[in-house]
Amino acid sequence: MAFWKSLFNGSNAIAPSSTTPAEEETLLTTGKTQQDTRIFFSTTRSIDLYELEELCDAVGWSRRPLRKVRKAMQHSFLVVSMWEEQGAHRRLIGFARATSDHAFNATIWDVVVHPKCQGKGLGKALMNYMIKRLRKEDISNITLFADADVVDFYHRLGFVSDPEGIKGMFWYPD
Amino acid sequence: MAFWKSLFNGSNAIAPSSTTPAEEETLLTTGKTQQDTRIFFSTTRSIDLYELEELCDAVGWSRRPLRKVRKAMQHSFLVVSMWEEQGAHRRLIGFARATSDHAFNATIWDVVVHPKCQGKGLGKALMNYMIKRLRKEDISNITLFADADVVDFYHRLGFVSDPEGIKGMFWYPD
Repeated sequence: MAFWKSLFNGSNAIAPSSTTPAEEETLLTTGKTQQDTRIFFSTTRSIDLYELEELCDAVGWSRRPLRKVRKAMQHSFLVVSMWEEQGAHRRLIGFARATSDHAFNATIWDVVVHPKCQGKGLGKALMNYMIKRLRKEDISNITLFADADVVDFYHRLGFVSDPEGIKGMFWYPD
Repeated sequence: MAFWKSLFNGSNAIAPSSTTPAEEETLLTTGKTQQDTRIFFSTTRSIDLYELEELCDAVGWSRRPLRKVRKAMQHSFLVVSMWEEQGAHRRLIGFARATSDHAFNATIWDVVVHPKCQGKGLGKALMNYMIKRLRKEDISNITLFADADVVDFYHRLGFVSDPEGIKGMFWYPD
């Protein structure tokens, strides 16, 4: 299983900025025996960036310089990864992160679930976990920019588009 | 001129988080004599929060706990204030800040220009300064959530709403 690289690799350790939420692991599903698949969330930033790149490749995202991905992870307020564990093997199957002012606003970016794991409610579970963690940190305004094909997915999670005519806008050079 | 409180007040000093842009002051307009009004931008975080509150009051925003405002300033990537200076007096006339992952994305919040100073192109100058500073830090994706009545203002600055169907969304509890 060379594909499943060693995780939580010290050489890729990323120091979080101050006053970010404490790291934790949270079990989503557990099996009856030790060989059954378990799925859990982690808020560690020590993710193998090559494995994260593989996950993003799997959904067809453009590659980004790992130096910048590392910096973005370090300066995100919350980083959540979703893992499938069977026996001693852990595999990264989902990811999301949020920027924030640590007080009022958070914006969720880079939400991804491995295509082989989609359609099982895991994306919903990942987002609900993000929301729960942000609410726990007393963030009142949780926002995101949704691609057209996932607007309905976020609607079902309680996100509202353009409330009171507020528009998401992106700056482009002239 | 008791209204013009002492600025850059040490007791309200706010420590920026690491790797944020260096603080600077930039002159926008200058007069011919020392008594003429000068307008300049600053990226200091050491703003008198009571004066910031007065500015926000002037445009009718709801008051927010200063403890949280201080935290939000500390954890914003970029804080820009706009000042009108005449002789020894400095008056806060505009403000904006941005959250960011310091790598890819920035989101601009709390853009405000004092009503008495509106209609002179100062809001445009403030936003262009924000954009210039964010671009200088190699942020490629500059975003914001615009209230319905300022969407056209941001359009004129080069912001595009809902590009390729991307929707700004806000989470509300069920």
